[in-house]
Amino acid sequence: MKIGILGTGIVGRTLGDKLAGVGHEVRMGARQSGNETAAGWAAAAGDRASAGTFADAAAFGEVVFNCTKGEHALDALRQAGAQALAGKVLVDVTNPLDFSRGFPPSLSVCNTDSLGEQIQRAMPEARVVKALNTMWCGIMVDPRRLSGSHLAFLAGNDAAAKSTVAGLLGQFGWRPEEIVDLGDIGAARGTEMMLPIWLRLYGKRGDGVFNFAIAG
Amino acid sequence: MKIGILGTGIVGRTLGDKLAGVGHEVRMGARQSGNETAAGWAAAAGDRASAGTFADAAAFGEVVFNCTKGEHALDALRQAGAQALAGKVLVDVTNPLDFSRGFPPSLSVCNTDSLGEQIQRAMPEARVVKALNTMWCGIMVDPRRLSGSHLAFLAGNDAAAKSTVAGLLGQFGWRPEEIVDLGDIGAARGTEMMLPIWLRLYGKRGDGVFNFAIAG
Repeated sequence: MKIGILGTGIVGRTLGDKLAGVGHEVRMGARQSGNETAAGWAAAAGDRASAGTFADAAAFGEVVFNCTKGEHALDALRQAGAQALAGKVLVDVTNPLDFSRGFPPSLSVCNTDSLGEQIQRAMPEARVVKALNTMWCGIMVDPRRLSGSHLAFLAGNDAAAKSTVAGLLGQFGWRPEEIVDLGDIGAARGTEMMLPIWLRLYGKRGDGVFNFAIAG
Repeated sequence: MKIGILGTGIVGRTLGDKLAGVGHEVRMGARQSGNETAAGWAAAAGDRASAGTFADAAAFGEVVFNCTKGEHALDALRQAGAQALAGKVLVDVTNPLDFSRGFPPSLSVCNTDSLGEQIQRAMPEARVVKALNTMWCGIMVDPRRLSGSHLAFLAGNDAAAKSTVAGLLGQFGWRPEEIVDLGDIGAARGTEMMLPIWLRLYGKRGDGVFNFAIAG
């Protein structure tokens, strides 16, 4: 499958490596063409990897992962282009973290709205699936690194899009029973609002090598 | 130990039953004296149970559980009296649920503040511990009803108060490693903000017989 990655940070590079590693063609997009991080990633990731702008990556992908920082996500998607994203599965991995008051960050949107919903409204023809935003990227692509069962939540309005994302997660090592469909994109409020407790647990542990699970 | 319970709803009655059952003296307080629910509960719960007003229950308890509805919590605590609560462990089980827009509720406070923090500020001499607000009351008092390990989060500024609460949770059947101290009362933001995903999971399952856990 052809996959676009928006964003050159650790989340985008980690997902890009894994997606290329399991056989997909992956194009990483940056704000500007010639971005050295994206070019370096593509050179290291092999023949199935390439680099370009946000618009290039969005045009390339059948599935597009939004791995930008939450504060830049809507701008990045506008650069990618609503037209290029129309009809495509847009996997939104971002969190609306607001570091303007220091650490730990608060959320720039929550409770009665979410970044996932804002993105779906801004890109009405994209098939947005909120996913993987409740864990460190090392766990996203290697769930079996943790013993026991733990969860990847999906939220989105398009059942087929969620099924496509679940298929990709299966290639990462997620078991079917670990992939929990929470319903429509409004459930992004729930997953984004897990960030404050995630950050507390991260601070207490000193690492992100954990994930949420459910007993019962 | 003498325990006060503020609130006559299912959470207060369930905790009251359990606390009396493990040997504590429990006084349930209601807004007005002569509340029939509180009197009926006390009659059924046995010799160690009694009923009165919020102020009666607060004066009685060495530990006081706030089991009112979130929207009434601050009013109820003012009725109980800052003086009566001074120096006492105040276990805040509430969530700031706002049903004014229908179901599912949103939160009336979150992100940069929490109900737990509001209560600590309103009752500065009480030793507030946010606890048990991330699960259905049937799990609070019977954690072994679920197979496997799952978590009870504590947040509060007073280490000895958290230790007292952890001791009570141990009497309910919580294992020491399942009781997670998240730090100061500011962590109540994190546990209260788990409500939206809890509500989604509740809606999907159709019951509250589950709880959050951590893998890793």
